[in-house]
Amino acid sequence: MLNTLIVGASGYAGVELATFLNRHPHINITALAVSAQSPDAGKRLSDLHPQLKGVVDLPLQPLSRADEWADKVDVVFLATAHEVSHDLAPEFLKAGCVVFDLSGAFRVNDGEFYTQFYGFTHQHGDWLDKAVYGLAEFQQEKIKEAQLIAVPGCYPTASQLALKPLVDAGLLNEAQWPVINATSGVSGAGRKANVGTSFCEVSLQPYGIFNHRHHPEIVAHLGTPVIFTPHLGSFPRGILATITCRLNAGVSRDDVAEVFHNAYHDKPLVRVYEQGVPALKAVVGLPYCDIGFAVQGEHLIVVAAEDNLLKGAASQAVQCLNIRFGFPETQSLI
Amino acid sequence: MLNTLIVGASGYAGVELATFLNRHPHINITALAVSAQSPDAGKRLSDLHPQLKGVVDLPLQPLSRADEWADKVDVVFLATAHEVSHDLAPEFLKAGCVVFDLSGAFRVNDGEFYTQFYGFTHQHGDWLDKAVYGLAEFQQEKIKEAQLIAVPGCYPTASQLALKPLVDAGLLNEAQWPVINATSGVSGAGRKANVGTSFCEVSLQPYGIFNHRHHPEIVAHLGTPVIFTPHLGSFPRGILATITCRLNAGVSRDDVAEVFHNAYHDKPLVRVYEQGVPALKAVVGLPYCDIGFAVQGEHLIVVAAEDNLLKGAASQAVQCLNIRFGFPETQSLI
Amino acid sequence: MLNTLIVGASGYAGVELATFLNRHPHINITALAVSAQSPDAGKRLSDLHPQLKGVVDLPLQPLSRADEWADKVDVVFLATAHEVSHDLAPEFLKAGCVVFDLSGAFRVNDGEFYTQFYGFTHQHGDWLDKAVYGLAEFQQEKIKEAQLIAVPGCYPTASQLALKPLVDAGLLNEAQWPVINATSGVSGAGRKANVGTSFCEVSLQPYGIFNHRHHPEIVAHLGTPVIFTPHLGSFPRGILATITCRLNAGVSRDDVAEVFHNAYHDKPLVRVYEQGVPALKAVVGLPYCDIGFAVQGEHLIVVAAEDNLLKGAASQAVQCLNIRFGFPETQSLI
Amino acid sequence: MLNTLIVGASGYAGVELATFLNRHPHINITALAVSAQSPDAGKRLSDLHPQLKGVVDLPLQPLSRADEWADKVDVVFLATAHEVSHDLAPEFLKAGCVVFDLSGAFRVNDGEFYTQFYGFTHQHGDWLDKAVYGLAEFQQEKIKEAQLIAVPGCYPTASQLALKPLVDAGLLNEAQWPVINATSGVSGAGRKANVGTSFCEVSLQPYGIFNHRHHPEIVAHLGTPVIFTPHLGSFPRGILATITCRLNAGVSRDDVAEVFHNAYHDKPLVRVYEQGVPALKAVVGLPYCDIGFAVQGEHLIVVAAEDNLLKGAASQAVQCLNIRFGFPETQSLI
Repeated sequence: MLNTLIVGASGYAGVELATFLNRHPHINITALAVSAQSPDAGKRLSDLHPQLKGVVDLPLQPLSRADEWADKVDVVFLATAHEVSHDLAPEFLKAGCVVFDLSGAFRVNDGEFYTQFYGFTHQHGDWLDKAVYGLAEFQQEKIKEAQLIAVPGCYPTASQLALKPLVDAGLLNEAQWPVINATSGVSGAGRKANVGTSFCEVSLQPYGIFNHRHHPEIVAHLGTPVIFTPHLGSFPRGILATITCRLNAGVSRDDVAEVFHNAYHDKPLVRVYEQGVPALKAVVGLPYCDIGFAVQGEHLIVVAAEDNLLKGAASQAVQCLNIRFGFPETQSLI
Repeated sequence: MLNTLIVGASGYAGVELATFLNRHPHINITALAVSAQSPDAGKRLSDLHPQLKGVVDLPLQPLSRADEWADKVDVVFLATAHEVSHDLAPEFLKAGCVVFDLSGAFRVNDGEFYTQFYGFTHQHGDWLDKAVYGLAEFQQEKIKEAQLIAVPGCYPTASQLALKPLVDAGLLNEAQWPVINATSGVSGAGRKANVGTSFCEVSLQPYGIFNHRHHPEIVAHLGTPVIFTPHLGSFPRGILATITCRLNAGVSRDDVAEVFHNAYHDKPLVRVYEQGVPALKAVVGLPYCDIGFAVQGEHLIVVAAEDNLLKGAASQAVQCLNIRFGFPETQSLI
Repeated sequence: MLNTLIVGASGYAGVELATFLNRHPHINITALAVSAQSPDAGKRLSDLHPQLKGVVDLPLQPLSRADEWADKVDVVFLATAHEVSHDLAPEFLKAGCVVFDLSGAFRVNDGEFYTQFYGFTHQHGDWLDKAVYGLAEFQQEKIKEAQLIAVPGCYPTASQLALKPLVDAGLLNEAQWPVINATSGVSGAGRKANVGTSFCEVSLQPYGIFNHRHHPEIVAHLGTPVIFTPHLGSFPRGILATITCRLNAGVSRDDVAEVFHNAYHDKPLVRVYEQGVPALKAVVGLPYCDIGFAVQGEHLIVVAAEDNLLKGAASQAVQCLNIRFGFPETQSLI
Repeated sequence: MLNTLIVGASGYAGVELATFLNRHPHINITALAVSAQSPDAGKRLSDLHPQLKGVVDLPLQPLSRADEWADKVDVVFLATAHEVSHDLAPEFLKAGCVVFDLSGAFRVNDGEFYTQFYGFTHQHGDWLDKAVYGLAEFQQEKIKEAQLIAVPGCYPTASQLALKPLVDAGLLNEAQWPVINATSGVSGAGRKANVGTSFCEVSLQPYGIFNHRHHPEIVAHLGTPVIFTPHLGSFPRGILATITCRLNAGVSRDDVAEVFHNAYHDKPLVRVYEQGVPALKAVVGLPYCDIGFAVQGEHLIVVAAEDNLLKGAASQAVQCLNIRFGFPETQSLI
């Protein structure tokens, strides 16, 4: 049994982590924590999320310093803001914990990236070097050895699972950047009170055009430029990404199908469609990323769908845990 | 042309008032105002509510004191919190303005009511005496003479329009209190940032059981006890009230139909159904209250539907204005 | 391992049954079936419900006669229209199968009930006599012996779980009938193409006033009259019932709390709230019925929430299966 | 007063037409019609669409032949399937009526287009030649002279209003096709009973990839190839199109702004944003198309939003009527 701490447990990704880990046969949830300033500190998780009444009633403990917990746990999940993860993760790591960080604080092994896109100077270049990017389907061997796993962002997970096999196989015409149009449910904005995400204000709209932080994350790991336009959709959870690409001359639908088959036929949490493309409902509440595509001439449309809180956050983090500790990859996820 | 000020114009009722009054042929919107502390002060209304771009682009002026505007306007709409209305209304009234107050500050002509249900000592008993309760279908003569019209709450409007003709006609068995179950859209909670009304948190639920302020408002004006249970529904606007009553022995369906016919056949904004009961969609975005009913033995179910922001707030306020100034009752409303 | 057939597997309750039974360690899903006339016959379940891709890909076999399958299975779930269940159930029963019927065909042990409320003459009075009503929390001993379990309707489950302990304890004033106002998600109307349940048509509305078939089912099993008004809500799943009752003189809040505690403290799938009342989100996707209440003087409001497809249909059916065969009551449900 | 017939009045565009025309000071709605086979024939419009109770209670008359009505009316709106419009329009035209056709039957002046994309041989090449494409902002002079106005499709309206000024001004790099990703509300699929558009089935999903009929309509009128991917969104009405383009070298943000300003500064129903891009809520229920954009290097994102039933159908048809008969362009629309 691995003693486990979840920091940031009151947020939407945190509550999903608690749900998965509560039913994991090799995990003991030692404690749930939130920042000491949080208005949720001291409440039970099930007071905030009533679906968990009688299931996970643990209190949300105020976390001031990592060392209060570092000696008591083997594993830490950080479902926290990137500044918080940046400060906390090294303390847990020094104490020997294995850390799964769901923030952006350790996703790109380049200090300059943080200066440019996150607006702060990264203080932990050593851990940046050691961190493994937890895109689970592509990093299995590295994850097995890692102490710090930086779980990818929600949009980057869907975007990369759709594009990486094509890029790696050299199928895309580099003269034309892939155009990623993606729409996320409102839970992607977190659980803070905010007029912009209130029930009466939400409607379909683009945001962060040309300047969303997930754009450079995608580019850094994919190794190729893309145009990325995120949208807020009027539904609670899920991401659907519609990606328009140009194929190299002579590339056929069968070539695309083969590349996806090779990439994912032995990956239980990516489902490639033989025909058609996914609807969002195929994945909401489930740990899968579903991928479908269509080809016409040199034009390729790839559609990827996932639950932003699951494959885009909590279930991918647990998938990484399962890989890291040698449990079945889908343990407690399906 | 009546020069008109709307205070609290940035809220959901305020924006509806601005929309109606902007197209009213006898109204000039002199200014829109918000409290001086509001983060919206200085913005244009259409910055907050983009549907009004090019339609109502007036700025939201910070209001510190009533006398900045009292001399410049003939009519004031207060779409403000009850404490604010309580303080502002008398100042505008002293300057001779006609005031339509959408808050609860002047709805019941009894100072004790405010001590008990609103938790403050009402300072303006004189204006309480003069205020006319703007339940438009029943107060037409008084509204024509009034300087201060207290526009009813959203639930009380639907509840009273459904019950008042029955109570006045003596059809209901007093041994059994009417049971009002009503569900309101989220806009009823106002436009403040609030976790409870955020997109991912809202689901159908009762609230304010046995202690909602609209309960004593209904009882005071209806003159009979009721049980009132409000619910929050997962839709942006509208109220549907399902009211279960006991009829006196011998009262028939035809008797009920006749009472409703007599009450509303000449009232353009209450639509009584000859058969069936209303669905919410019949009234959303419209200034009507729709009423239908069913009888079985001594049991009567009355269903009333309205848009909480319109017949339950802004359009009833404009309806009162139309009555007050002798304009056609539905001017600029339909 | 129990070989199991699900008839009507393509509907909303059917797909939930398939999901639960697919992960049940003692169940082998032998086949999924639909009526031979269904346009879904021959398709895979996951073609209709893409969330099941790679999970339950079994084909929907056209079922003409029970004897095609009766010898091959131990257990049959009928998620079918009541006429279909009426005809099929006896055939499977004669072959020795244990049948869980989710329709209304065997819920009330009184042939007259069917003549009056369902409009047909029940042909299987013998099986009506033997059928056990599967309100799981109250029928455990009988379910263990039963060959035919008639799983309660969605509204009757919530209504009875809320009222039965109070009625049985004699807390309610019989002079005043309990008023049940309940709102169901659209899935309650089934998965047929229908303008009335199309996306653009649904809004909150009452229906079936004074004549819904679940009314006599509630009355028959509760043994006391009630007023029941169902509503269609603009959400996909869940039922919230707000029930207004009159207590006998002298009955206190503590008395009510004690009655609920006694009824459910050892029942894992009914969660009684110590304070407050449930919101719908507490139960959507989960097999619980949540109950909260409030008392003022002689007035009692009880609120019950459940997922109409789960505790109101599929998960209660599986709960009955677990009880029937001696598995843990919550096996594969939580 | 123009005597006016609306054919197909029971559908979602039809009911919007009836609402606009009912309040138009120069229009007399002579009759509402539906096909003789329609189950709606004989009902009142307000029976199907209760928001119109007391507003438009006219019956839906079964239409067998155009000549029953052609002599009695000056103007005909066809909110019918393209096959129906194809057959009916010439009959009304021969009788001298002015026809506004909301179907695709006369939108492209090329018989081959219909063979290829609509699968039938167009029989009325003469009327195809005379038909004017009613993209109101660009066809004002031709509309004034036209007897047959083919009102554009919903997606083509938004797409062309966003792209046509840029294409006409030569700002776009032809080496890279504009990528149009658009999401429509469910009302775009019409008011037929259909499992695919039922409340519980709808979720965000692409459809008609590479083969939607609006694609060739856009290309034909824009005169340049595009990639068009429509999506179904989980909201009742509205279209949001996010369009990714490549600018010619040296084209600046100011150049784009100037082109849009020149195109629309005197057009009351297209609102160009000085900064930011539209959200869907800005246009739902309103007759505008809102356009915003962002530039980064050679990349341009244009976002266009409209109500699919209004600027994408009914209000644009009435706008064309206003232009055709010399009424103010926005008469009865705002």
